[in-house]
Amino acid sequence: MNFAGLFQQRLEALHQEGRYRVFADLKRRRGSFPVADHFAANGSHEVTVWCSNDYLGMGQHPAVLTAMHQAIDAVGAGSGGTRNISGTTHYHVELESELADLHGKEAALLFTSAYIANDATLSTLLKLVPGTVVFSDEKNHASMIEGIRHGQCEKHIFRHNDVADLEEKLKKFPQGTPKIIAFESVYSMDGHIAPTAAICDLAEKYGALTYLDEVHAVGMYGPRGGGIAERDGVMDRVDIINGTLAKGFGVMGGYIAGSRDLCDAIRSFASAFIFTTSLAPAIVAGALASVRHLKTNAFERVRHQERVRTLKALLKAKRLPVMDNPSHIVPVMVGCPVHCKAVTDALLHQYGIYVQPINYPTVSKGTERMRLTPSPVHSDEQMANLIRALEELWAACPVSNGTYVRLAAE
Amino acid sequence: MNFAGLFQQRLEALHQEGRYRVFADLKRRRGSFPVADHFAANGSHEVTVWCSNDYLGMGQHPAVLTAMHQAIDAVGAGSGGTRNISGTTHYHVELESELADLHGKEAALLFTSAYIANDATLSTLLKLVPGTVVFSDEKNHASMIEGIRHGQCEKHIFRHNDVADLEEKLKKFPQGTPKIIAFESVYSMDGHIAPTAAICDLAEKYGALTYLDEVHAVGMYGPRGGGIAERDGVMDRVDIINGTLAKGFGVMGGYIAGSRDLCDAIRSFASAFIFTTSLAPAIVAGALASVRHLKTNAFERVRHQERVRTLKALLKAKRLPVMDNPSHIVPVMVGCPVHCKAVTDALLHQYGIYVQPINYPTVSKGTERMRLTPSPVHSDEQMANLIRALEELWAACPVSNGTYVRLAAE
Repeated sequence: MNFAGLFQQRLEALHQEGRYRVFADLKRRRGSFPVADHFAANGSHEVTVWCSNDYLGMGQHPAVLTAMHQAIDAVGAGSGGTRNISGTTHYHVELESELADLHGKEAALLFTSAYIANDATLSTLLKLVPGTVVFSDEKNHASMIEGIRHGQCEKHIFRHNDVADLEEKLKKFPQGTPKIIAFESVYSMDGHIAPTAAICDLAEKYGALTYLDEVHAVGMYGPRGGGIAERDGVMDRVDIINGTLAKGFGVMGGYIAGSRDLCDAIRSFASAFIFTTSLAPAIVAGALASVRHLKTNAFERVRHQERVRTLKALLKAKRLPVMDNPSHIVPVMVGCPVHCKAVTDALLHQYGIYVQPINYPTVSKGTERMRLTPSPVHSDEQMANLIRALEELWAACPVSNGTYVRLAAE
Repeated sequence: MNFAGLFQQRLEALHQEGRYRVFADLKRRRGSFPVADHFAANGSHEVTVWCSNDYLGMGQHPAVLTAMHQAIDAVGAGSGGTRNISGTTHYHVELESELADLHGKEAALLFTSAYIANDATLSTLLKLVPGTVVFSDEKNHASMIEGIRHGQCEKHIFRHNDVADLEEKLKKFPQGTPKIIAFESVYSMDGHIAPTAAICDLAEKYGALTYLDEVHAVGMYGPRGGGIAERDGVMDRVDIINGTLAKGFGVMGGYIAGSRDLCDAIRSFASAFIFTTSLAPAIVAGALASVRHLKTNAFERVRHQERVRTLKALLKAKRLPVMDNPSHIVPVMVGCPVHCKAVTDALLHQYGIYVQPINYPTVSKGTERMRLTPSPVHSDEQMANLIRALEELWAACPVSNGTYVRLAAE
């Protein structure tokens, strides 16, 4: 059997569609991020990163880095085991307690990523409660989709953020049918924000459990960084919150927060939790410092929102195709994978600006985009450089006329 | 719908079966591991850890810790993104190249854990090559089982390490049917080692791809720590090697190594790879230092094997029920979850020795055990203390007579 030939065919198809992914080889400069070194065949060059999910710059916050250094000095590199077999450190215990408090829940449970937190929690939940019907927003993240699929349940997709459509689907089932509504607070690629209160109303009316992915919100929204549910005052009405330590908190790892019994059940039955080496102590210690900092300091959140407003206003003033939304995510639409790659190549090579093209399967085909993520550490000057570069590229060759391929090849 | 009541029922069943898991809350002491502090309600107490998978003590090796400190100082805490969207650091590129070299392969691909490396790789492979039939060792790890299940393929389980049974199953399929043989080199709970050459012979004869999980072998076997396949001289006959950075290498994370096109296909199509924030730079830098150290230094490997031989000999001399095997894993059989918990509780509270009880689903019911993992940093004195403790416990009350419950409650 010629496996190799099959792999080549599949890869060749990606090249043909123009969505073969080339990873940018980067080394951020601690203390001067978003500046980083970009490694290429002809050496390394300075770039400004405009697409990081280190939304608040916490990845270089002194409190976080000091905590990581201290943990390495105190206990070493890895945890040495799964959570059950010698891999629960005191840092894990403290962070789970801190996260439970952040979300006003009885308990929290750490995973090596929010992806696996979603996949493991949803699939395990669905196996523990057979007959559960899931109502899932059509724009839900791949990790929720996988978790629901792995749970092998009945599933209904409701239109994105459409409460009327959700209710249409919910009302078809008797009150006694176990139901889960799975949704996100901030949708990562469009930057839409869910109507959390209205969804909680429906959950109460129809007796559904609410499962809310807040990975693009924790640290960034709410008075203590508890996310959109905290901001909207509905945290106590959400049953399970999924969050990440890798974006707003700037480190790595994911978690859920919920009732003690729920977290205990996932802890006890989820294969991907049970059989995985736990997060390294330095990671947990860094995340703990980050969560604690953002609980009591609004500086990063306030500055973040100001940077976002400023960038959106500048893009609009130049009539660049920014997609409007109420969040910190700034999508600039291109609409074709080949053009998207070409324009970002031009930004990288001609202007030292790094923005990764966003193509299928991350977004639907035809909605390819640049996804800009201004942070508190992006300066006015860096913003002006970005706007100037985009203006020049758009003036020379509007993306929609398809000639960016030529531009990038020059 | 009363989800809470259902969770409670499931948890209560675990308590009834005596296999409810209590995680030990630990803080290792860097520089004097296996010594750690164990946190309990009445304060923290010194313990000697005898069940860590930091098999070689690399979790406190100065080269590893220095590399982690340097990476934090150079680039900060998290990577800030998925591998595709700003999360590929130069450390990731270097480590993948180092791991490819370690296994004599064209390429390697990092994941946040070896669990997700198995799950994502196998499921994606099976989706990329529809009609593939998988032949899976009956003792394969949960992560391979999940990966195969998620690939939704035809699967045949062969008897553990039984080449004749494997051939019986292989020969039923035409040469042209795509086939994968999935197995481990060192089986983590029994310590058996697979007949790698004989399995590779069958793979060649019947045209099957070989997928080998070496997580309990990398760093520890082979002249450069390439694992059992390296030791047995069959590395070039294994198509895909799965390894971990969290056990022998002492840090965190997992990977696969294989052909360039295979790694590129998994990189391009595996949802769990694409949509997960990449490993933090400090983790990658620490792992890189560890892999490089163990490639050129045999000290830890030699001392590890000596410690294992010594412990096994001491256990046998005292007629303690150690399960014989050719690897570094030292199972001491108990055979009942309640007794297993009781004997390890006695070790912890009366002797300051921490060994986690191993119960279902990690091992089959009826084969509950203590799983001892001697390392190069376990001293003769620590070993003598362990043997004395076990001897006293067994003399007072042989585990098989079921009275450990009483002992632990005292």
